[in-house]
Amino acid sequence: MSLVTHDLIIIGAGPAGLTAGLYAGRSRLKTMILEKLSVGGRILLTESIENYPGFVDGIITADLIKRIEEQVKKLEVKIKPEEVLELDCKSMSVKSGSKTYSAHAIIIATGAHPKRLGIIGEEKFTGRGVSYCATCDGAFYKEKSVVIIGGGNSMAEEALFLTRFAKQVNIVHRRSELRASAVLQERLKKNKKINFVLNSVVSEIIGSNKVESVKIKDMTSGEERVLPCEGVFIYVGYAPETQFIKEKLKLDDTGFIITQDDLSTSAEGIFACGDCRKKALYQVITACGDGATAADSAYKYITNKV
Amino acid sequence: MSLVTHDLIIIGAGPAGLTAGLYAGRSRLKTMILEKLSVGGRILLTESIENYPGFVDGIITADLIKRIEEQVKKLEVKIKPEEVLELDCKSMSVKSGSKTYSAHAIIIATGAHPKRLGIIGEEKFTGRGVSYCATCDGAFYKEKSVVIIGGGNSMAEEALFLTRFAKQVNIVHRRSELRASAVLQERLKKNKKINFVLNSVVSEIIGSNKVESVKIKDMTSGEERVLPCEGVFIYVGYAPETQFIKEKLKLDDTGFIITQDDLSTSAEGIFACGDCRKKALYQVITACGDGATAADSAYKYITNKV
Repeated sequence: MSLVTHDLIIIGAGPAGLTAGLYAGRSRLKTMILEKLSVGGRILLTESIENYPGFVDGIITADLIKRIEEQVKKLEVKIKPEEVLELDCKSMSVKSGSKTYSAHAIIIATGAHPKRLGIIGEEKFTGRGVSYCATCDGAFYKEKSVVIIGGGNSMAEEALFLTRFAKQVNIVHRRSELRASAVLQERLKKNKKINFVLNSVVSEIIGSNKVESVKIKDMTSGEERVLPCEGVFIYVGYAPETQFIKEKLKLDDTGFIITQDDLSTSAEGIFACGDCRKKALYQVITACGDGATAADSAYKYITNKV
Repeated sequence: MSLVTHDLIIIGAGPAGLTAGLYAGRSRLKTMILEKLSVGGRILLTESIENYPGFVDGIITADLIKRIEEQVKKLEVKIKPEEVLELDCKSMSVKSGSKTYSAHAIIIATGAHPKRLGIIGEEKFTGRGVSYCATCDGAFYKEKSVVIIGGGNSMAEEALFLTRFAKQVNIVHRRSELRASAVLQERLKKNKKINFVLNSVVSEIIGSNKVESVKIKDMTSGEERVLPCEGVFIYVGYAPETQFIKEKLKLDDTGFIITQDDLSTSAEGIFACGDCRKKALYQVITACGDGATAADSAYKYITNKV
């Protein structure tokens, strides 16, 4: 076993992990954040954010993340680009490739990833017309027709973003009404590039080398038709990034980590915050609030123990 | 009984209530926020905030509040300067003076107020040397000697603020160590105007027309001595603003509102967020996270019911 090199290891550098780093750094805990992809996490899949308190006209998501990252780095908290593959609750350590790090406490802030639909053509055309990130790929669809699947806020925000490029954006949703907030629904309805295909699902993505059309099934009549399009954007929810801790921590049926009020998990000294834990509302502001609470709880745990 | 004039009433316009307003406004709920004092609440008792994610070099507290207030007002959410004196859970209404407002749901975001010490001279000299707000009153103590009582982050931040004016700032704390974060403790120790009086309590505030000295009791020896000073700043914690809902909602022993994960209270359709509810960490960022969650839960409650 390796030596304890840190007070606290935080897994994940999205809003929750970064805010945990901010609070841990201000408590002068020797803290390391490990992030497998890019700092910011899945929120970077949306372009801008309007409901983060403190920015009157909204803020570009990447800017907000950069600001929080700088705030954290000022406190000598290290952010390393490494993927944690294993968590050992007993030795309070994590494995990342050939390296093992251990600490006095660990915070899991691994977030969630976009859910796949699991339909024919989805995997085949990912990166060739199928995308889970309009912010990343929207610009490829100038004057083209696209389909976007989903009914929530993420879908609505990204559908509006796509109208800057595409000539038509077809929203396919399985129910008769969207779940998105009223403000967003109003904007969608006002936008002439938006076309609603409700009570419908995409049952297949069709093409030779790249996406050429989708098969759409009407949920009421059961009838299927083909809708030509060049891009398919999928926004049907998120699954928690908790595969690597299955059977190590108590999770709910869908894989979200179960936490107490202080964000402690079923294993002593291990805390969870943000989108990877079971909670009422998944937003940047709730992730940040979580991060502060988890770091404070970890700090109290460490100072009472060490 | 009055007509239902709003979808949602939010009591309190601190960070929690404002963020609840932001989310409710974005959901197009007809929302009114009632605030008895000034928009911002008790956080205005501190000058600036360094640990709110998104502001690299910190932000003046009043500026942050103003930014969030503007963000809320853009959404046609009304903020009225009225004090709620009564809550009626059955008719889902609140009384403010001669007016009664009712709604489909209510969010309580009344926050907390500074605790009194309850010592001789405290009440008599409040406003004449005794203060609970260094940010408000610090400038009156240029080149004077002051005492600040407490051991947490609020005390530490405000002690540092007072060093800009006072010639000496005596920190009186009952324990041998402060609870404040390590970053703040380091700064206090480096500052030559700061003098620590540990293991001690202030047992009396002395003066004729205004504060002239305090009586300090050493907790180890039991000895008392008199310390001359012209100002006494008290930072010994906060008590929730829940007097008006006693016996209406389930509270803990110290008066904090008990909530579920979705921030619902013991009464149907009534939610609570921020410093007035029992939770692990009381910070601006956790209050904001709470506000978003409470508004989302209220929205779901209303749309499922109305």
